[in-house]
Amino acid sequence: MLDRFKVPPADQVRVAEAALRQTVAAIFEKVNLTPEDAAIGADVLVTTDLRGVESHGVSNMLRSYVQSYQKGDYNPRPNWRIVRESPSTATIDGDGGLGIILGPKAMRIAIDKAKTVGVGIVTMYNGRHLGAVGHHAMLAAKEDMVGMCMTATQPGVVPTFGAEARFGTNPVAIAAPAKTQPSVLFDVATSAVAGNKIGLAARVGSNLLPGWIADREGNPIVEETPVLPRGQYFQLPLGGTREQGSHKGYGLALMVEIMATMLSGTLPFGLDRSTGYKHFFAAYNIAAFADVAEFKEHMDQMLEWLRETRPAPGQERVLYPGLLEYEEEKERREHGIPLHKEVIQWFGKITSELGVLPLVTL
Amino acid sequence: MLDRFKVPPADQVRVAEAALRQTVAAIFEKVNLTPEDAAIGADVLVTTDLRGVESHGVSNMLRSYVQSYQKGDYNPRPNWRIVRESPSTATIDGDGGLGIILGPKAMRIAIDKAKTVGVGIVTMYNGRHLGAVGHHAMLAAKEDMVGMCMTATQPGVVPTFGAEARFGTNPVAIAAPAKTQPSVLFDVATSAVAGNKIGLAARVGSNLLPGWIADREGNPIVEETPVLPRGQYFQLPLGGTREQGSHKGYGLALMVEIMATMLSGTLPFGLDRSTGYKHFFAAYNIAAFADVAEFKEHMDQMLEWLRETRPAPGQERVLYPGLLEYEEEKERREHGIPLHKEVIQWFGKITSELGVLPLVTL
Repeated sequence: MLDRFKVPPADQVRVAEAALRQTVAAIFEKVNLTPEDAAIGADVLVTTDLRGVESHGVSNMLRSYVQSYQKGDYNPRPNWRIVRESPSTATIDGDGGLGIILGPKAMRIAIDKAKTVGVGIVTMYNGRHLGAVGHHAMLAAKEDMVGMCMTATQPGVVPTFGAEARFGTNPVAIAAPAKTQPSVLFDVATSAVAGNKIGLAARVGSNLLPGWIADREGNPIVEETPVLPRGQYFQLPLGGTREQGSHKGYGLALMVEIMATMLSGTLPFGLDRSTGYKHFFAAYNIAAFADVAEFKEHMDQMLEWLRETRPAPGQERVLYPGLLEYEEEKERREHGIPLHKEVIQWFGKITSELGVLPLVTL
Repeated sequence: MLDRFKVPPADQVRVAEAALRQTVAAIFEKVNLTPEDAAIGADVLVTTDLRGVESHGVSNMLRSYVQSYQKGDYNPRPNWRIVRESPSTATIDGDGGLGIILGPKAMRIAIDKAKTVGVGIVTMYNGRHLGAVGHHAMLAAKEDMVGMCMTATQPGVVPTFGAEARFGTNPVAIAAPAKTQPSVLFDVATSAVAGNKIGLAARVGSNLLPGWIADREGNPIVEETPVLPRGQYFQLPLGGTREQGSHKGYGLALMVEIMATMLSGTLPFGLDRSTGYKHFFAAYNIAAFADVAEFKEHMDQMLEWLRETRPAPGQERVLYPGLLEYEEEKERREHGIPLHKEVIQWFGKITSELGVLPLVTL
């Protein structure tokens, strides 16, 4: 994550992982989730914060999840079911359940199928927000598989040359285990910048960079710009402009619609809101393709080689996706998770409102 | 494709599809391919030219393929074999065979597995150039499946912050059928620009755009620049710079290495040249996930909705991947394929050298 999105040190309040997990689970139980589901939801959010992915952790998401449960937009007790199935596939009706809670269950089905026939692919419609898609991909990596996850969300991004939003930021994640090196965990929006990062930039007072958004007419804004009010801009696909490759970001978003939306038998959110968000979960069993120990050894060799790449002038080192997050997780497990003081205020308010014990800070 | 890559009208010589197919197949037979394989190779190249994808058609690739057969870098009679297999997967040793010829065979195995268990995934090592990866993905779309294809090639692209090439332009393709609208066929390099496009720009005398290449030290070149001599530049990942999202292009290239290279049990080309290029083929059987007729109806609705998107000022219309290529194919089937006069000269030379009938032009 770019520095511009980080909580400034003066605004940080640190909380311990266990305390945050407890409070988040208690809040989820108060909006009518089962204790088991509340624990899953807390695990997904807190793990995401531990990895430093604030855009999709507690601070940026919990508030909106609680509001959506309270408004009845999310079903706290979804009666989700498999509507079509084959040895390597399943299509699920998510019945309006929150994605961060149904995601791990869908990925479990994909993993079990991959154990049996080599690959497991699960799609889901009637879904709600999936959180950090990388979290779900990682569940497969922990079982010696390559995991993938995608989600198709509400429109906010213009297609290349367009002046109307068509697709969501439609993120894609892939995770793969290594032997001694931290796992690869690649998790990115197919838009130039994740939607939640615009919210983070607004909170920490940072500008948006050239090529991230377009004006109301669809003209890409190619200078640095303050965050515009909601409704006054569109997001641009990865690449920003056609010359810089926005047709690739647009095509990747379309790929997500094909894999998640079309393969769950539905239409994009922008054409049919009634079928909610759509998700895609994939588990590729390494043992079906290659020797698992050798695969992990190869991963180590490749990842060390990437880390040892000579840096360009002015750059400190070359990273790979998942490395910084692994380092951040070690630091945060030890020293706590830094939340913005404004988020702490919200916790005070919501715990008192719901009758939950206050969040303990460090 | 951007206009800057197109053959200027004054340099065009048109040839009919059938004539080109015949001459290309005859050339392949002369470098010791079976008549069946020669026909497959000609089909892949000519279909790609018909779609207007000059970067991967006859003009840009055949010369290099012939040279590689003549030098012994490609095996004209590969003894390819499946080295590991499960109900939904196969790992293939390509025995040094050219990818454009082995690709359709590998995708056929993926399609057959998907018919049986829902999904078929095939990886291949000891591969050679795969041509336009979209061609292979499209074979699945023609069988009512979603097709994907990727290939991991020789290093030419720096990772974000890096000053040494690590990965190839590692392209990704996805294809999906619709009912009456042209199929989606998305096929892009994960670098800012495809490697072959740099060759095309050199041939037609166009500049490269900002953010496409880095200098020898790894500094992204953020102004328009002439094509530099080979060895004097690196390619940049999609995004160009970190701020514009190059970590996403880099991560996508890494994804290709995981799916194609790691899942075929080998190391990246930059660490081990002996295992050649690595390929990934996937077929997702639509019928395993949803009703096929409904899927195609949904595709039509989505694609029409994309085409009807209000354009931004100065833009003519909104496209989707595969639409322009479909239109180009209709035009070229009728009026012939425009080749650069310099390519026609090469045909004159090679047909005479190999004792093949001259290419008939229009």
